[in-house]
Amino acid sequence: MTQKPSIPKGTRDFGAEEMARRNYIFSTIRSVFSLYGYQQIETPAMENLSTLLGKYGDEGDKLLFKILNSGDFMQGITEENLRQESSNRLATRLSEKGLRYDLTVPFARFVVQHREELTLPFRRYQIQPVWRADRPQKGRYREFYQCDADVVGSDSLLNEVELVQIIDTVFSKLGIRVCVKLNNRKILAGIAQLIGESDKMVDITVAIDKLDKIGLDGVNAELRQAGLSEKAVLKLQPIISLSGSNEEKLATMRQALTGIETGLKGLEEVTFVMQTLKPLCLKNPLELDLTLARGLNYYTGCIFEVKALDAQIGSISGGGRYDNLTGIFGLEGLSGVGISFGADRIYDVLNQLNLYPTELATATRLLFVNFGSREAAYCLPVIAKAREAGISCELYPDSSKMKKQMQYANAKRIPYVAIVGETEMQAGSLTLRDMQTGEQRLLSPEQLIDALL
Amino acid sequence: MTQKPSIPKGTRDFGAEEMARRNYIFSTIRSVFSLYGYQQIETPAMENLSTLLGKYGDEGDKLLFKILNSGDFMQGITEENLRQESSNRLATRLSEKGLRYDLTVPFARFVVQHREELTLPFRRYQIQPVWRADRPQKGRYREFYQCDADVVGSDSLLNEVELVQIIDTVFSKLGIRVCVKLNNRKILAGIAQLIGESDKMVDITVAIDKLDKIGLDGVNAELRQAGLSEKAVLKLQPIISLSGSNEEKLATMRQALTGIETGLKGLEEVTFVMQTLKPLCLKNPLELDLTLARGLNYYTGCIFEVKALDAQIGSISGGGRYDNLTGIFGLEGLSGVGISFGADRIYDVLNQLNLYPTELATATRLLFVNFGSREAAYCLPVIAKAREAGISCELYPDSSKMKKQMQYANAKRIPYVAIVGETEMQAGSLTLRDMQTGEQRLLSPEQLIDALL
Repeated sequence: MTQKPSIPKGTRDFGAEEMARRNYIFSTIRSVFSLYGYQQIETPAMENLSTLLGKYGDEGDKLLFKILNSGDFMQGITEENLRQESSNRLATRLSEKGLRYDLTVPFARFVVQHREELTLPFRRYQIQPVWRADRPQKGRYREFYQCDADVVGSDSLLNEVELVQIIDTVFSKLGIRVCVKLNNRKILAGIAQLIGESDKMVDITVAIDKLDKIGLDGVNAELRQAGLSEKAVLKLQPIISLSGSNEEKLATMRQALTGIETGLKGLEEVTFVMQTLKPLCLKNPLELDLTLARGLNYYTGCIFEVKALDAQIGSISGGGRYDNLTGIFGLEGLSGVGISFGADRIYDVLNQLNLYPTELATATRLLFVNFGSREAAYCLPVIAKAREAGISCELYPDSSKMKKQMQYANAKRIPYVAIVGETEMQAGSLTLRDMQTGEQRLLSPEQLIDALL
Repeated sequence: MTQKPSIPKGTRDFGAEEMARRNYIFSTIRSVFSLYGYQQIETPAMENLSTLLGKYGDEGDKLLFKILNSGDFMQGITEENLRQESSNRLATRLSEKGLRYDLTVPFARFVVQHREELTLPFRRYQIQPVWRADRPQKGRYREFYQCDADVVGSDSLLNEVELVQIIDTVFSKLGIRVCVKLNNRKILAGIAQLIGESDKMVDITVAIDKLDKIGLDGVNAELRQAGLSEKAVLKLQPIISLSGSNEEKLATMRQALTGIETGLKGLEEVTFVMQTLKPLCLKNPLELDLTLARGLNYYTGCIFEVKALDAQIGSISGGGRYDNLTGIFGLEGLSGVGISFGADRIYDVLNQLNLYPTELATATRLLFVNFGSREAAYCLPVIAKAREAGISCELYPDSSKMKKQMQYANAKRIPYVAIVGETEMQAGSLTLRDMQTGEQRLLSPEQLIDALL
C-alpha cells in the first residue's frame, strides 16, 4: 500500500471544527478593526527577495522561505559560484522571490508603491498567513496567521490611544482577560543615557526584555556580558525593579530622568496615552512596564504588549510606533504605529479556557433523511425553500440505512432531522426530529421552515 | 533616490476598495456553500513536492513553484548532478516542498490523511489562493484564488443536482446571468466508441473542447492530426453540430448510441440530473452541451461549466465527477464530485457589468473632525459609545485644517461627519453633517447615534 501522505513539518491542516473556531477569531478581530475605520488590504504571498532581505536581521534572512526560480534556474551560475559561495549567497542566485515573513514589511512596501493612490493618514488592516523556516516546536509553526492594524502618516498619539482601545475591545469580545503593558522606546533611551550607556541601548533593551524569562540575576549577567560597567548595572536596578501604580512609577521616573530630554518626552507620551484612556473606561488593566522593550529595532515611541491573565502563554498581541519604516523603501518621514494579534496563540488560549460560543460547532441545521428516489424528489423543493429562508440544510445523498444517516447527523452535530416516508408524502407533510430531545412533530413544509427560523 | 519597490510579476496587491469587492464575492460564495451544508477546511500553502508532482501532467510539474530547501541545500549534490541533470530533476534535489497548484489535489491528500476522523459523505469547501508559474497575461495571474466545493464518499447523482443548484444560487445572488453547461464523460467515451476510436478518447475530448475557440474546421483539422480516420471524423460531425432542445439532443443521442453501454449510462445520468432539477425552477438555463469536455483527465462522469451571458470571458465556474481521485494517495474506491468558482474572473465580470452593491464602497460611516486636544477629548467617549452601538467611526487623529479633514472624508467616501467646536462643547452636543446633501444638524450624543443606526 502507498505510504500515507503527509504535510511539511511545521504546517497544519484545519478541519471543519478548527476552521469554525479560527473564523470566529478572525471575524471578531476584523469586525473591531472595521469599527475603528481600518480598511483591509492584501499583499501577495511572494515578494521579491530584494524587498525582504536585510529587513529582519541575519537570522531573519536565513529563515525566509525562498522560491526556486522557474525554468532553467542554473543558467548563468558558474562552477565557482557553486564551489565557493555560502548557501545564503547562492540562494539569491537561485531565487528571486521569497514568501512573506511578516505583514509589516510588505505593508511598508505597499505604502511606498501605492503612495499616490493613498489618502493619509492611512489605516489599514491585514489578516494573512506568514511563513518562517523556524525550527517547529509546540506553539511555533512555519505557517501562521498574523492580524495587523497600522496607521501611517500621522504622528498623533490619539492613534496609540485607539490601538489600546482596539486591543481592549477585541479581548473583551473574545472573553479573554488580559493586561495591556505599555512602555516607550524613548524612556528606554533615556534610561540608557541616565546610566551612561547610550551606545548600548540595544543590548540593554534585549536584556531587560527577558526579565520575565530569566529573572533579575539573569538580566544583570547579560548586561555585564554586554560590557556595561558595574556602576551602570547598579544604577539600573531600581528602575528594572520599580513597582507601584502607574502614577507612582511615572513620578519616580520623572525624577530619575530629570534633564534627560528624550526620556522625559517618552514619559510625556505614555502619560498622555494613559490619561486620555482613563475616561474611556477600558475593560482590561493598562500597566506601565518599564522592562517592556520588544525585540524589533524599528520601534521608536510607544510600545505595547498583551498578556493573557488566565493562561500561561507568551504575549498574544503587541505593537508600537515606528518613525521611519517606509524609509527602507525610499519614502522618508512617514510615521506609523500598529499592533498585531497572534491568532494562533489566541486560538490556544480560547481552547485552553474553553471560551468558544457553543453554536460554532456545526454548520448544517437540518438533515433530510433519504429513504429512496421518490422520497428524495419529494424533499428537494422543501429543501430549496428552507435554504431560501436562510436555513442551512442537506439531503443525505444516498438512500442508506436509517441508522447510518442518523450517525452522520450526530457526527456532524446537526440539531434537526426531517424524515419523509410514505405516510408523510401522503399527508403532504414531514416529520421533524429534534436530535437533542428526541421529540418528533408532524409538520407542513411551511411549519417546518417556521420552526427553524 | 531608491528605486520604487515592486511585486513579482503575475501577483497583485489589493487595496481597500478591491478587498471590499473581493470579500463580497467570497462571502456570497461562502454563504451559499454553507447553506448546502458544506464545511470549510484549509490546507497549508506548502505541500510536499511528492504530493504535487505527477498530478498535473508534465506541463503542470514545470509550473509548480518550488521552495528552496532551508539551510545547506547544496549538501549531497554532486558535480555530476549539477552538470548532467535537467532543471526539473535537479529542482527536486534542491526543493522538497512546493506551493499549492490547485485545491483538488490537496483536498484528496487531506481526505486520505485524515480518513479516520472524517464522516462520509464529506462535503467540504475551501477558499484559498493557488500559485502557478504560468506566463502572466491579461486575466491570468501567478497567484489567484479558487473557491471549491466537493463531496466525497457518495456516488449519488443528487450531489450533481445540488452542485448545479449551488452554481445557480451563487450567480443569482451575484446578479450575473449565466448558462450552465452539462455533459458527461461517459457520453464522450460512448461517442469515441461509436466512431471506432476508443483509444483516441483524450485527443477527441481535447479537440472538441476547443470548438468555441477554433471552430468546426479547426476541430476537424486537430482530429485528423491526432490520427482519426476520415470516416470517424465524418461520423463525428452531426454529433458535434447537434442543436435543439436538451430533450431533442438526448433523443438523438439515445438513438445514435444504441448498444453502447457506457454512452447510454452517461445519457441516463444527465437525464436524471436534468429531470430532478426541473421542478426546482433554476433561475438560469441548463444546457446539455455534447462538445463540453473539460481538460482535466480525472473526470469520469458528469461535467459542468458555466458561461456568463453578458460578458465576453471564458468559463467562470466548472467541475465534475471523478471516481478515484484519492487513489493516487492509496485510498481506492472513493467517488467524488465538485465544482470550482473562479473568483478572479467573477471579479472581472462584476466590474465589467458594474454589479456591486453600492454600500460596499466604504467602511467608515462617521468621521469626527479634530479641532484640537480639548475637542478630541470631548469626542472620544461619544465615539466609544457609537462603536459599541456598531457604528464604524474614526476620529481624525491630527488637528489639521478643516479642509484637509473634509478631503479625507471624501476620499474615503465617509457619508457622515461630526463636527465639535466651542459651541457644541458648551451645549453638550455635536453637529452632524450629511456629506451627500450638505445638511447639518445639532444633535445630542444619543441622537447622533440613533440617527446613524
